[in-house]
Amino acid sequence: MIKVTTVLSPDELEAALRSIGAERYHNLHPFHKMLHGGEMNLGQVQAWALNRYVYQQGIPIKDYAILSNCEDKELRNIWRQRIFDHDGLGDDIGGIERWLRLCESLGLDRDYVKSMEGVHPASKHALETYINFCRRAPLLIGFASCLTELFAPKIHKERIAGMLENYDFVDDSMVGYFRERLTQAPRDVDFALKYVKEHAVTIPQQQEVIDALYMKTGVLWAQLDALYLAYVSPGMIPPGCFVPEDHQAAAAQ
Amino acid sequence: MIKVTTVLSPDELEAALRSIGAERYHNLHPFHKMLHGGEMNLGQVQAWALNRYVYQQGIPIKDYAILSNCEDKELRNIWRQRIFDHDGLGDDIGGIERWLRLCESLGLDRDYVKSMEGVHPASKHALETYINFCRRAPLLIGFASCLTELFAPKIHKERIAGMLENYDFVDDSMVGYFRERLTQAPRDVDFALKYVKEHAVTIPQQQEVIDALYMKTGVLWAQLDALYLAYVSPGMIPPGCFVPEDHQAAAAQ
Repeated sequence: MIKVTTVLSPDELEAALRSIGAERYHNLHPFHKMLHGGEMNLGQVQAWALNRYVYQQGIPIKDYAILSNCEDKELRNIWRQRIFDHDGLGDDIGGIERWLRLCESLGLDRDYVKSMEGVHPASKHALETYINFCRRAPLLIGFASCLTELFAPKIHKERIAGMLENYDFVDDSMVGYFRERLTQAPRDVDFALKYVKEHAVTIPQQQEVIDALYMKTGVLWAQLDALYLAYVSPGMIPPGCFVPEDHQAAAAQ
Repeated sequence: MIKVTTVLSPDELEAALRSIGAERYHNLHPFHKMLHGGEMNLGQVQAWALNRYVYQQGIPIKDYAILSNCEDKELRNIWRQRIFDHDGLGDDIGGIERWLRLCESLGLDRDYVKSMEGVHPASKHALETYINFCRRAPLLIGFASCLTELFAPKIHKERIAGMLENYDFVDDSMVGYFRERLTQAPRDVDFALKYVKEHAVTIPQQQEVIDALYMKTGVLWAQLDALYLAYVSPGMIPPGCFVPEDHQAAAAQ
């Protein structure tokens, strides 16, 4: 892991952050590759959408937690756009609703998804860790924890193309969430990266920024790990968690 | 999942709690069975001890969080024994130190274990979720989250017998942690269970008690899930996590 021993220039800090993404961002996870490569059945894609909903519905909570540490009105008014993007504003239904519609299009029951009863415990733990980190971290470090957005546009593009091409149960109306993120994420990250590069100027600050990104890549990675174990190999679904219909059929044969 | 629709008698509540253990306690996890059945190699036992250290070192933090919600001095003075059991008091080195010695006896470096750098992110997330739950929950519900101790003596007995019998790298001096827990856990749970049965008297309270135990069994289960995926099957170790020496040797061949 990267240990900061001398103060990094802003560009060196950015390079360090990008190197963490190159090593640990969840686009490197086998689950991601299978999902976008068309190697999954409907039940596996359902399990992914269901578990990922936990994360989606928690994003505004995370952003409210971050802004509860922000004493600067101007900053709050910039950052709150992220809340609008997910919770909706005016005519925009928002990303959480878009994700719910994706789940419904995949054949999941809306209320079951919203109850989060069938999700893997690790999906909840990962989100809980992220929110709690932002609640307790100084503003700069809360901002820094969002910098996985540096790597997100690539994953969204792969997701849209891969899922439309490879699954006959996915159509254009279902990838609305990712299309929106293609413009939202770069805008968000431009601001967050600039802020972090300007304000993380001591060794301890830079180390905390780096550690925040390690924390966050771990949050994303652990979610796919849990999905892989439960729904790909060896197929160990924890008690009480979602069991896809085709999985039940396979077990009954 | 259990939904409380009419007020349960204290004994009905206890029965409900025990049924959650019978369905979801981590003694049912395949990793537990392999560990105690002698089916693991040294590297896998090291990975387990290393990752479980995260949980052990967090137990007193959890108990301090619980007691930060307790306005009753008499109650605090009973519950704090759990802190002494893990952090040590007087001549007793405490459970955390006993766990570190177990790790060292297994060939792990003490400082590496304490740094927690090589642990699976899900191990940290599970602990974080548990601590944060106790920080925010009312005292009754914080107490209730500890009731997995109802099921622990059985697992400790299996662990001592199974590990001594099945692994030539485990000797009697290494299972000190579990021996202590054989007397500590029943004493703790007698108090916690009595308190919960007396004080959870409304439907919402009883539901929260039950949900706390679901949360907690998920915490324990998810830890073994992560270990299984990384170190048993399919052997997907996340970037930066502990790689056993025999695993490295196998990969190099």
